[in-house]
Amino acid sequence: MVNQIGLPILNHTQMIQKKYSYLLIACLILVFISCNNSPENKELDQHPNLILNAKSVSEIKANLGNVPLFDETLAQTKEDVDAAIEKGIEVPVPKDMAGGYTHTQHKLNYANMQKAGVLFQLLGDEKYAIFVRDMLLAYAKIFPTFETHPEPRSYATGKFFWQCLNDSNWLTYTSQAYDCIYDWLPKEQTDYLNTNLFRPYADFLSVGNPKYFNRVHNHSTWGNVAVGMIGLVMDDEELINRALYGLDKSDVDLTEKDNDGGFIYDKEGKAGFLANVDSPFSPDGFYTEGPYYQRYAMYPFLIFAEALQNKKPDLKIFEYKNGVLIKAVDALLNLTDVDGEFFPLNDGQKGMSYYTSSLVSAVDIAYFYGKQDARLLSVAKKQGAVQLDATGLKVALALKNGAEKPFVKESMELSDGSKGDEGGIGILRYNNQKQTMALVYKYAAQGLSHGHYDKLSFSMYENGDEVLQDYGLSRFVNVEQKNGGGYLKENKTYAKQTIAHNTITQNETSHFGYDFETGSKYHPEKYIFDASNANFQLVSAKEKNAYPGTEMHRTFMMVKDADIEKPFIIDINKVQSNKNNQYDLPFHYFGQIIATSFSYNVPKTLSPLGDKYGYNHIWKEGVGTANAESIQFTWLDNKRFYTITSATNKDDELILARVGANDPEFNLRKDPSIIIRKKNTQNTVYASIIESHGNYDPVKEVAKNAYSNFSKIEVLTDTVDYTAIKITFKTGKEKLLILANTNNNSQKEHTATVKGTNYTWTGTYYYK
Amino acid sequence: MVNQIGLPILNHTQMIQKKYSYLLIACLILVFISCNNSPENKELDQHPNLILNAKSVSEIKANLGNVPLFDETLAQTKEDVDAAIEKGIEVPVPKDMAGGYTHTQHKLNYANMQKAGVLFQLLGDEKYAIFVRDMLLAYAKIFPTFETHPEPRSYATGKFFWQCLNDSNWLTYTSQAYDCIYDWLPKEQTDYLNTNLFRPYADFLSVGNPKYFNRVHNHSTWGNVAVGMIGLVMDDEELINRALYGLDKSDVDLTEKDNDGGFIYDKEGKAGFLANVDSPFSPDGFYTEGPYYQRYAMYPFLIFAEALQNKKPDLKIFEYKNGVLIKAVDALLNLTDVDGEFFPLNDGQKGMSYYTSSLVSAVDIAYFYGKQDARLLSVAKKQGAVQLDATGLKVALALKNGAEKPFVKESMELSDGSKGDEGGIGILRYNNQKQTMALVYKYAAQGLSHGHYDKLSFSMYENGDEVLQDYGLSRFVNVEQKNGGGYLKENKTYAKQTIAHNTITQNETSHFGYDFETGSKYHPEKYIFDASNANFQLVSAKEKNAYPGTEMHRTFMMVKDADIEKPFIIDINKVQSNKNNQYDLPFHYFGQIIATSFSYNVPKTLSPLGDKYGYNHIWKEGVGTANAESIQFTWLDNKRFYTITSATNKDDELILARVGANDPEFNLRKDPSIIIRKKNTQNTVYASIIESHGNYDPVKEVAKNAYSNFSKIEVLTDTVDYTAIKITFKTGKEKLLILANTNNNSQKEHTATVKGTNYTWTGTYYYK
Repeated sequence: MVNQIGLPILNHTQMIQKKYSYLLIACLILVFISCNNSPENKELDQHPNLILNAKSVSEIKANLGNVPLFDETLAQTKEDVDAAIEKGIEVPVPKDMAGGYTHTQHKLNYANMQKAGVLFQLLGDEKYAIFVRDMLLAYAKIFPTFETHPEPRSYATGKFFWQCLNDSNWLTYTSQAYDCIYDWLPKEQTDYLNTNLFRPYADFLSVGNPKYFNRVHNHSTWGNVAVGMIGLVMDDEELINRALYGLDKSDVDLTEKDNDGGFIYDKEGKAGFLANVDSPFSPDGFYTEGPYYQRYAMYPFLIFAEALQNKKPDLKIFEYKNGVLIKAVDALLNLTDVDGEFFPLNDGQKGMSYYTSSLVSAVDIAYFYGKQDARLLSVAKKQGAVQLDATGLKVALALKNGAEKPFVKESMELSDGSKGDEGGIGILRYNNQKQTMALVYKYAAQGLSHGHYDKLSFSMYENGDEVLQDYGLSRFVNVEQKNGGGYLKENKTYAKQTIAHNTITQNETSHFGYDFETGSKYHPEKYIFDASNANFQLVSAKEKNAYPGTEMHRTFMMVKDADIEKPFIIDINKVQSNKNNQYDLPFHYFGQIIATSFSYNVPKTLSPLGDKYGYNHIWKEGVGTANAESIQFTWLDNKRFYTITSATNKDDELILARVGANDPEFNLRKDPSIIIRKKNTQNTVYASIIESHGNYDPVKEVAKNAYSNFSKIEVLTDTVDYTAIKITFKTGKEKLLILANTNNNSQKEHTATVKGTNYTWTGTYYYK
Repeated sequence: MVNQIGLPILNHTQMIQKKYSYLLIACLILVFISCNNSPENKELDQHPNLILNAKSVSEIKANLGNVPLFDETLAQTKEDVDAAIEKGIEVPVPKDMAGGYTHTQHKLNYANMQKAGVLFQLLGDEKYAIFVRDMLLAYAKIFPTFETHPEPRSYATGKFFWQCLNDSNWLTYTSQAYDCIYDWLPKEQTDYLNTNLFRPYADFLSVGNPKYFNRVHNHSTWGNVAVGMIGLVMDDEELINRALYGLDKSDVDLTEKDNDGGFIYDKEGKAGFLANVDSPFSPDGFYTEGPYYQRYAMYPFLIFAEALQNKKPDLKIFEYKNGVLIKAVDALLNLTDVDGEFFPLNDGQKGMSYYTSSLVSAVDIAYFYGKQDARLLSVAKKQGAVQLDATGLKVALALKNGAEKPFVKESMELSDGSKGDEGGIGILRYNNQKQTMALVYKYAAQGLSHGHYDKLSFSMYENGDEVLQDYGLSRFVNVEQKNGGGYLKENKTYAKQTIAHNTITQNETSHFGYDFETGSKYHPEKYIFDASNANFQLVSAKEKNAYPGTEMHRTFMMVKDADIEKPFIIDINKVQSNKNNQYDLPFHYFGQIIATSFSYNVPKTLSPLGDKYGYNHIWKEGVGTANAESIQFTWLDNKRFYTITSATNKDDELILARVGANDPEFNLRKDPSIIIRKKNTQNTVYASIIESHGNYDPVKEVAKNAYSNFSKIEVLTDTVDYTAIKITFKTGKEKLLILANTNNNSQKEHTATVKGTNYTWTGTYYYK
C-alpha cells in the first residue's frame, strides 16, 4: 500500500530518463511550446524567490546562532525533518478520510517537504533537497494512476485527500519546497514535475473543480493560493491570473449550494484571490466566517501575499483594501480569550488558539510587512516559534533586542461586511492584574456557510474560562471515528440553531426559519458601541429581520461599580412585535446550580423540549414559574459563583435544560442552560444582571461572596423611545438606567418621564 | 446582631471587675479550691509551653530574617492578623449554619487568635496580645448568655457553632493563643477566663456531650484534643486525663448512632485521644475514614502530640503504636494524585489537597519528630508555608540548606484496621518524566460513618486527572445555600451507594444491603499486593460478605508492555455465587464517547435505571447488547483517548448511564458511566483492559493513536483454582494470563491446563 521510494542519489535523472523517456520527450515539446507562449518566463529569477530568496537566505545565514527564537525554531524543524528522513518516504495511495492513515501521512508529507526545502536553503545540506525531490517524484509517479480520491463525500473530491481543500493545502506548502530545490534540480526534472504533477494538479484544483475554485470562501482561498503559489514557482502567468481573478463564471448557476449548505458562488459574481480579500473581510479585518476559519485562511492569505510581494511587488498586495491583510491579523488576535483561544463564533472548534502554526506565520508576516507593531512580538514570544524566512528573522531579532510590548486586548468593535456596514462584533473587556472579563456580542452578518443563526447572541469569559458559552461547532476535527473527522449532523440540527446560543428564539423557530438564503440577505444594525468610559462600557444593536414583524434590540453594559469587586453586566433585550409570540432567552452556563429564587419541579422522566430547531436536542430537566418580578439564579463553576438576576413577569417560565436528547452517537456535549420563557407576549423587555461575585476554595473550604450583590432588577418604563430600569443592590443602593431606543446620537439631549419624575441627559443613556 | 467589642486597652481588668465582681469572687474561691486539689499545678512552667516555649521562641528570634520560608510565612501571617486587627473584633451571637456569617466569623476569630498569639511571642508587639485578650473577653462575655447554638441539626449541638466539632476547632486553636499570652495576662484575668470560659467550655464539649466526646471518630478526636489542649494550658490534670482516656462509658448504649449514620460509641468500649490513635489507624498509618477525614484529623492528632511531647514527654506520644502518627503523615501524602489532591475515598470532597494548612503543620511536625525525612521538605517547599514554631523553623532551615529530596510516590499498599488485618488500599503507580498513572484499589473496611458501600472498587488517574472516578461525597462544604454547607441527602441516596463506584452491584442492591452495622462487621481480604516487577504490578483482594452466598475476587494488573507507550490495566473480576443473579459493573468515566464496538438504542425519553440504592439517580441514556465475545468502548477526555476492552457474553447488556435523576435540588454532578450488565448469571468473570492510548491536540487538530492497542480480551478458562485470559493486541501479538485464585503463596508451583495445553509456573500468576 505504501509506495516506498529509494532512488539512488546520483543517477536518478538517468533512471527517470529511462523510465519516462518517451513521455519526457513529449513533455519537453510541450514545455517549449508553453515557454514560447509566455515570454516573461524566459527571464526567470533565480530560485528560491517565492518566500525565501538569495538576499533573505544570506541574511539569515549571517545571523544564525545569534537569534534565539529563530535558532530554536530551526533546531526543532531540523529535528522533525531528520526524524522524517530517518523514517523514510511514504506516499500511500489515497484511501482514508480525515484522521485516517493516508490522510495523515499526506499531511505530514507536505509539512515535512516545506520544512526540508527551507532547511536545504538555510543549512545547505543536500539530504534535504534529496528528500523533497524523491518525495515529489513519488507523488508524480502515483498522480496519474487514479482519477480522484476514493471517498466521494465532498462537493469537490480531491486527489490525495477526500476534498480539494486538503489538496490545496498540499500544493500551497509543497510549492514552497519545490521553489527551494528548483535550481538544484536538473532542468529535465523540473520540466517533468511541472508537466506531470504540478500543472495538471493546479488545473485539477481550478478548471477541474470550478465549484470549488470559483467561490468566495476559505476553501477557495486555499484553492486560489495553491494554484497561485505553484504558478509563481513555475512562472506560469496563466495560473497566476487564474489564482488572482478566478475562472470565468458566465455559465454557472449562482444559486447552487455546497455540502456545508453555503452558496457555491459569490452573489456579486466575483472570484479569485483578490475577490476573497475584498468580500469576506471587513475594513477592520474581521473575516465574516468567524475567527476559527479566519485562523485557517490567514496562512494562505498571508503566505501568498508574501510571495506576491516578493515576485509581483507592483501589485502592492499589503496595501490592498487599505492594508486589510495586516489589519486582519490584529483583528484575529483580538478575537481571543486571555489564553489566546479564539472565540468560537459560528463554526469554531474550541481550543484552537493563536499558538497554531498558521498564526506564527501570520504574526511574523504582519510584523514585517506592517508597521513593526511591537505588540506582535509579545505574541510571537508566547508562540515560541517563528517562520523560517526574512519575516521570522526580523521578529526574532527584535525579540532578541527586547523590543516587545504586551498585547493588551482592549474593548473594541470589529465591523462586518466588505464595506463594514453589515453589523459586527462588539467586545467589552475589563482587565486588571487579578482579573479579566470579556463579553463578546455578535451582531454580525450570516458568515457564509459556516454561519450560525444567532443574531444578537453573546458569550462571556472570565480569566480565559467560558462563563456563558457559545456552543461552537459539533465536530471532532480529524478524529476519524467521528464521521471521518468531518462535520456531524448535530452541527446543523443543534449547534447552528438559535436555541444553542444566548439569544432569543421566537415561537421555537430559529432565526430566518433556519433558511440560509434569507439569513444571507440581512444583518443586524449596530446601534452603539461606546467603550470610552471604562466604568460604563456599552454595546447595542438591533435585529429586524430574523423574525418578520418582530424587532429585537439588545444592549449590553459592562459596569464597574466602586462598591463591587468585579464588573457586572447589564443585559437589556427589548422585543417589539406586531403579534403575540413565545420568547425563549437561554443562558448557557456551566457547572452546578447553587440556588434559585424560584421553585420548580423536576420531572420523573426526561422529555425533549421540542421537536425541531434544536429544541429536539434539549432535555427539560426542570420547570418553574417566576412568581415574582425579579428572579435569581446562582451557580458555581470553575470555583467561582455567578448569579443572573432577571426582571420577570410572574407567569414567566424558567426552564432548566440540558443538551443531549436525540443524540444517538453521543456527539453533543451535555451542557446545561436556563431558559427564561415568556408566553403569549407581544412587546417585552428581558432585563438581566449577570455577575461573577465570589469564589470557592476547596482547599480552605471557604465560600467567599457566595451571594449576589443585587436584590433585584425592575423594568420601570418601556416605550418605543425609552426603556428605564431600576437596579437594587443588596446594600439598598439603587441605580436608575434609562436607554434611548431610537436615537443613537451621542450629542442628543433627552428627556424622559419615569414614574412621574422627569430625567434629562445627553447621549444614549442615563445611569445614576 | 454583631457584638462589637471596644474595651479600653488599659482598664479592662477594672471594667470586668466592676461588671463581674461578685461572680469573680466566687470563681476565685473555686480556683483556689481547684488548685489545692491538684498539687502539680503549683509548679507551673512558664508560658508559652504548649507549642512554643522559651527555647524555641529564642531560637526562632535568632534566625528571623535568614530562613526564607519561615520569614515569608511570618510576613503573611502578620499581614493577615494586622488586617484583622484593623477590621476590629467581631464576636457575634451565634446564628448561622456552615458558610453563614456568624459561622465564618467565629472560624476567622480562632484562626486569627492563634496567629496573633504566635506573633506576640515572635515579634513581641503587645498589640497582638491585646487582640487575643480582648477577643477572649468578648467570648467570655457572651458564653454564659445562651445555652447552645440555635440550630439544632447536629447530634451534638455546639455553642458558637452548630456542632460541637467546630467548637472543638475553636478551642484547639484558641488554646494555643491563650498559652501565648497567659503569662502576659494578669492572674485575675486568667483565673477569670479559666473559670468562666475555658473550663466550662471544656466541660460542655466532654461531660456535657458524651455522645460527641466519647467516640472513636474524627469528631471526637477534635473534642479530645480541644479539651486536652486547654487542659495542658491550664495544667488541669482532670481535663488532660479526660482527653487522653475519655469519659466513663459504663451506662451508655453502644448501638446508638449519630446523624451521619455511624455508631456513637466504639465497639470495644474505648474512648479518648489514645483510643482514637489506637483504633482508626492501621499500623501503616492509614486512617479508616479515608484521606479526606484523615487530613482533617491530622491537625488535632499532631498538634496535641506536639503539645504532649512538650509538656508530657514521658508519654512518648510519637512512639505510641510504633510511631503511627508519623507514619500517618507519610501514608496521607501517598494518598494523593500528582497535584497533591487526596483520593476521594469514602466521604471526600474533591480538590482538597496537601496544600491545606493542617498538612503544613503535619508535614513540619512529622519532619521534626520523625526521622527528618528529606522528602517531606519538598512537600513543604510546594506548600510554601511552615508552622510558626520549632518544627517549621527546622523545616525552613533545612530547605534553606537545600536538603530536600523529591517526594516520589511509589506503588504501595496501606493496610486497614487497627491491627492491619482488615483489608486495605492498594495503589499501583507508573511514573516517568512525561507521564504518571495511578490505580487506587479499595479493599478497606467500612470506614466508620463516612464509609461508602464500595468493596473492591477502584479509581484511575493520569497526570493528576481523574480517568475513572470515585464520585466522592455529595456536599458543598461551607456553601451555605446548599443545606447550610452540610451533607446533602444525595450523599446517602447516591454517593455512598455501590452503583456510584467502579465495582459490582448484585441485583440492584448495594453491598451489605446498605446496612451500616453489617458493613462494619466485615472487610475484604487482601489476596496479593506485588509491585516488585515494575512492568507487571498486581493487586488482588476478595470480598465474601457484601452479598451473602456470593464471592467476588478482583485483581488489577498494571502492565507496561515495551510495544506500547503507556501502561495498561488488566481488571479481572471473578464472581462466584450459590444462585443466579444480575451483576452490574460500571465504569465511571468523564468526557465524550468516541466509538463503541456494539450498537445500542437511545430512548426518546429518559427514565431512571431503578428505584433505589442509587439506581434511582441514574438516567438510562442508551442500552445495547454486546453481541460479541469482546466489546470496546472509546472515549475522549482531557484531550486523551481511552478504551475499555471487555470480555462479554453475547447477551450482556451495555448501559450508557448518567447521574441526575430524582435530583430536585441539582445537587449531583451529571457524570456519565458505562455499565456492563450480566443478567441471570451465577458464576462469571469480568475481564477488561483499561488503556489510555493517545491524545488530541486541538491546536494542531491532530488525533494521535485514537484507536485502542488491543483487538480483544477473552476468558479461556475459569475454574475455582485458575482463571485464564487471552489478550490480543492490534498487531496480532497475544498474551496469556493465568491467575491462581486460591493460593497466594509466591513460592507455590502451579500447573493449569488451558485449552488442552499444560502451563507450569511459580507464584500467583503466569503472563507470557
